[in-house]
Parts: sequence; C-alpha cells; structure tokens
Amino acid sequence: MKRIADSTVRRLSIYLRFLEEFEERGLATVSSEELARRGGTTSAQVRKDLSFFGSFGKRGLGYSVPELLTALREILGLGREWRVIIVGAGKIGAALAQYRGFRQRGFQIIAAYDTNPEKVGRPLEGVQVRDMAQLETDIARDRPDIAVLAIPSDNAQAVLDRVVKAGIKAVLNFAPAQLHAPADVTVKAVNMAMELEGLSFALTNRE
Amino acid sequence: MKRIADSTVRRLSIYLRFLEEFEERGLATVSSEELARRGGTTSAQVRKDLSFFGSFGKRGLGYSVPELLTALREILGLGREWRVIIVGAGKIGAALAQYRGFRQRGFQIIAAYDTNPEKVGRPLEGVQVRDMAQLETDIARDRPDIAVLAIPSDNAQAVLDRVVKAGIKAVLNFAPAQLHAPADVTVKAVNMAMELEGLSFALTNRE
Repeated sequence: MKRIADSTVRRLSIYLRFLEEFEERGLATVSSEELARRGGTTSAQVRKDLSFFGSFGKRGLGYSVPELLTALREILGLGREWRVIIVGAGKIGAALAQYRGFRQRGFQIIAAYDTNPEKVGRPLEGVQVRDMAQLETDIARDRPDIAVLAIPSDNAQAVLDRVVKAGIKAVLNFAPAQLHAPADVTVKAVNMAMELEGLSFALTNRE
Repeated sequence: MKRIADSTVRRLSIYLRFLEEFEERGLATVSSEELARRGGTTSAQVRKDLSFFGSFGKRGLGYSVPELLTALREILGLGREWRVIIVGAGKIGAALAQYRGFRQRGFQIIAAYDTNPEKVGRPLEGVQVRDMAQLETDIARDRPDIAVLAIPSDNAQAVLDRVVKAGIKAVLNFAPAQLHAPADVTVKAVNMAMELEGLSFALTNRE
C-alpha cells in the first residue's frame, strides 16, 4: 500500500467519530461536504483521504454511513483487540490506565510497569503494576501489541530499546524526548508542551 | 499573515527542539537536509515551512542555529509567559500540573478548578485547586491566556462555553468530544484514543 501520511490517518479517526455520531442520530448517508465542514477541511480533501482505501460513496448521493463506518473501522485496525502495556506508573500512567476511551476502541491495557517497589504489586486504576525487571519475560509471554511510555525523558530511549528488542512494533511516547527506533517500529509522540505551543502560536499570530 | 496549517506549526515545534539540541552540542549552523532528516520530512518541506515567516539561511551555508532558534521562539510566541488554568483536578489534571516541560517553555499554570469539595482548597501537584463556581470571577481578575479542559466529555461543551464567555481565546481539550467555539477562539484537542488509532493503523497496514 502507498505510504499514508499521519495527518491523513488522523483525519480518518476524526471522520470515524462524526460517522458514529451520525449513526446514533439515525442518518443513513452523509456528503463529503458535511464531513469536511465538521472536520474543518475541504470536501476534496475528504474524497482524497478516502480514495486511498477504495471507492466509497456515489456522486450526488454521498456516503452510506454504516458502510463508511465499517470501512473506516477496518482501515484503522479497530475490528480487533489490541493489547497495550503502560511503562511508568506515575501520574500520566494513571491517567491513561483510567481512560475509558481506550477499551471502547478495543485497546485493552493488560499491565503497567514501574521500578518503584512501592508501586509494584499495587493496582493502578484497576491495572496490575509489575516490576520493570519482568518486562522482557512478560512481553515474550503476553505478546502485547503496543507499549505506552509514560516515563521521564532520560530513561525513554533505554526503555524504548528494551521493548523493541522484546518484539514490540508500536510505541506511544509521552516523554518529551525524540526517540530513535528501527524502521519497522512505529513510534508516535504525545508532547504536551508542543500542544500548548500550537496555542501560543495561535494567540501570537491573531489578526 | 497567511493562514498556517496546524501541521506546519507542529513541525516548527519539532525543529525548535532539534535546534536546542544542536545549540547544546555547540553547533553553529544546520542544513535544511539535517533538519529534514531528524524531523522525518524533506528539505523542501523545511524550507517551505520556514519561508512563511521570512528569509532564513544562506544557500550552501545552511541556517545559523542561534538565529533560527530566536526566530522560531518568536514565531511560536515563546518569548513571553503564558498563564494557564486547568479545569478538572482529576488524573489528567494532576499529570498536567506536574508536567515540568510547561514551565520551561513559559507556560505557567496559575490554578486548577474542580467541583468536588474534597479537592477544592487542596494543592494538586503544587497547583492551587479552586471551586468551579469562582471560574468567571477568577478569569476576569487573573486574565489567564489558555484553559486546559481535563474533564469528562459530557461537561466539556458547557465548560468551554463558560471559559469562552469569560474571555479565553485558546483552549486545549482532553475530553474525547468534538467541541464548538467561535471563530476567534482556538481549540486544540488531545485525544488519547486517536493517538492509539494511529498505531493500530500502522500495525494493520504493515507490509
């Protein structure tokens, strides 16, 4: 398949959310204009985004809401359960462990890891906290799909190397550090300060 | 100024981080190729991103690291202090309150707000938690620049309306809900499930 930009994938996630809302409201079809308006983009962009994945919709009739929903869920890999581990049982780890939106989408958090003996063995928002020393053994046994790194920057590369070596191919990184991984591993970063910079940019560059 | 895409602003934040690293390492200049390589983009994209904001760098010599750093900080509005309030003193609020990266960038968290009487009056990671009933009065007095919404989805639109009416022009929303705001208000969303969907997409569409 052609390389799809991150920004396209992000828009697919947004379209999915609108379609779920349309389905709840009992709408049978939706136009690319309506999806574009809601997503803050253009109808040409919507059609282009969807065209990567096949032929959807009929000219003048729009997209069938249930068909497009099914297709988007399949494209985004949401038809199955993904097993997730959280590395770091601090504040961010706890916020993630309790986040209800994950399970709804099929992301099951199977364990959290920490080095702190006071945290190990205690549940973190219902998730078992295990010793970091077990990380490799556990990954070999449990075969998680995704590792979320909720640890300080100075440890992040070392921990990334460990989960990658243990076979994990997808990582969500909350540490404010640029990490390096082999080409067959996808690393996505959530950087809270960068999100705020988007706002300071907007405030600074207002007309 | 021309309308700048969110993805461009995000890349500027990334370039800023590389430049800070180069400065620490004592490098005087950097090429668009090096910035592109580090940022996972093309040198043409780097040059285009920077060209929105003026003329930087000399052909064959690259960019001056200190000059480009100063320019990027100014473009991103990082030369000043931004006053931030957090609405919601739960797990995500706590994770944000303790996040060290904010203050380094000039984002000062001045207060958190909650409706829970057990939380009001107690510090949250060093940040004062105030009663939601004070929100409008406090905003009028303290003039925060940015509100971070770390609250459940069902309240998010109502709270957004309150902060907007009180005069706030920039909002970072952690609730998994699509919010509507007037055109002169910038709302950025951090959606944890969407971040994971980027990974399930990558895992599903691997060669």
